[in-house]
Amino acid sequence: MGRRLSMMLATACWLAILGSDARLSCLAQTKTLAERLGYPADARLVIVHADDLGMTHSINAATTKALATGLVNSGSIMVPCPWLLEIATYARSNPQADLGLHLTLTSEWKNYRWGPVMPKDKVATLLDNTGYLYLTESEAASRASVTEIESEIRSQIERARKLGIQPTHLDSHMGTLYQTKELFEMFLRVARENKLPVRLSKDMFGRLTFLPSIMQPTDVAIDQIVTIDQRVPAEEWTKYYSDALKALPPGVTEFVIHLAYDDEEMKAVTVEHPNWGAA
Amino acid sequence: MGRRLSMMLATACWLAILGSDARLSCLAQTKTLAERLGYPADARLVIVHADDLGMTHSINAATTKALATGLVNSGSIMVPCPWLLEIATYARSNPQADLGLHLTLTSEWKNYRWGPVMPKDKVATLLDNTGYLYLTESEAASRASVTEIESEIRSQIERARKLGIQPTHLDSHMGTLYQTKELFEMFLRVARENKLPVRLSKDMFGRLTFLPSIMQPTDVAIDQIVTIDQRVPAEEWTKYYSDALKALPPGVTEFVIHLAYDDEEMKAVTVEHPNWGAA
Repeated sequence: MGRRLSMMLATACWLAILGSDARLSCLAQTKTLAERLGYPADARLVIVHADDLGMTHSINAATTKALATGLVNSGSIMVPCPWLLEIATYARSNPQADLGLHLTLTSEWKNYRWGPVMPKDKVATLLDNTGYLYLTESEAASRASVTEIESEIRSQIERARKLGIQPTHLDSHMGTLYQTKELFEMFLRVARENKLPVRLSKDMFGRLTFLPSIMQPTDVAIDQIVTIDQRVPAEEWTKYYSDALKALPPGVTEFVIHLAYDDEEMKAVTVEHPNWGAA
Repeated sequence: MGRRLSMMLATACWLAILGSDARLSCLAQTKTLAERLGYPADARLVIVHADDLGMTHSINAATTKALATGLVNSGSIMVPCPWLLEIATYARSNPQADLGLHLTLTSEWKNYRWGPVMPKDKVATLLDNTGYLYLTESEAASRASVTEIESEIRSQIERARKLGIQPTHLDSHMGTLYQTKELFEMFLRVARENKLPVRLSKDMFGRLTFLPSIMQPTDVAIDQIVTIDQRVPAEEWTKYYSDALKALPPGVTEFVIHLAYDDEEMKAVTVEHPNWGAA
């Protein structure tokens, strides 16, 4: 949480949000989230967040290196994935790291897939006909029962804690839990019970019009989330992020990024998905 | 099945054993297995078999390359592992490939683990307290119920077939199914019902003294299995295999090997196991 460039541009993280009084009166808006984090009202605060920890060794290696160098200051973990124990070991050794859970209801790659944490027969609506989690978030949201999704995300949180991971926030792999009002209400309810903030920003309110009506005063919404569109080619990534930083509005902005090494493992995982294949 | 060097040294494979009349009267020994495969009684037949397909991308890539070049002529697949679908795609595209199932009841690496194909609550005795399969074959054999192991290996066979894999033989990852007479009897029974030979050789009879008493006339035993000891250092591997070939007795010998690229994925999988870490 070093302050960079000036008082007007600094880094935030979910651990700070979790630990501050930021969670009080978010909707009442008597103070901005930046103020509640101890900054001027018009400060520009940045969270640089890496998703998908636990999915592959390559992602774990690239992201933990980026956490060490400060390139990213937050990340989230996919509990059902094969490399979970590697990142759990990291989390136990680095309790200061701002690591949340990237709750996972999809298994999106052609040749490399995973199933649920729950026993498969208890969450049968979460699985496609191969016995893995669905390939897409729309299948997951339309075919899986909300009750079974709730059981599964509770199991993911429980398994993470059992492994010594102390999550600082919750988000949703491929946004499955943001697909319907019913899913998001359940997600918020589980998050509140676990006393954890969810990835939620005010710039979602236009698209997810149900959001304000189901939020409670203790729910935190940051101001903006920036995620690069998959169609932006690699040679334009630098310009994309540079432009986004120049246009940064006051408040808390989370840049959601995906780090991995461009190695044989990741090339094989991302086969037939060239736009996600680069380091 | 190209014949190499001379009529006296040739390659065999499980597909040939499965497809021939080799499975008749194995114990009666009116003819040797070599003869039943169409070779002289004293021919030296070699199966070079790569285990652990499906475990990692690196193993899949190295082994399918070795199958293409003829370095190995047989392999077996671990159904519960993360990279199963990649090798299933290969198996569907290469129906002539001699691929069996490496039935899997253990998950032996520190940071990279997997669970059963069956719903976890149906095979709870197969899991350690992390919810994955046991780290060692001795834990699996001593703690898991034989009934639940039977359900799990039947599920592994069923899932493989559903994915278009037509297994030519069955063997057992880390030898779990060879640990007790009760387990091996069940293994043979499942194999017979599926009309598949199991990895079984006459040179096991000294160590597994229960074997001859539970074999039936249709069970095939090859003559010898050669597996390198984990303690043999990498610089002595060439000498080890060269010596084994020079001393090759008549009959069918299977060399069981483990292929992978010495890349970042495999280094991370085999962390803390230096003797399994090389390509």
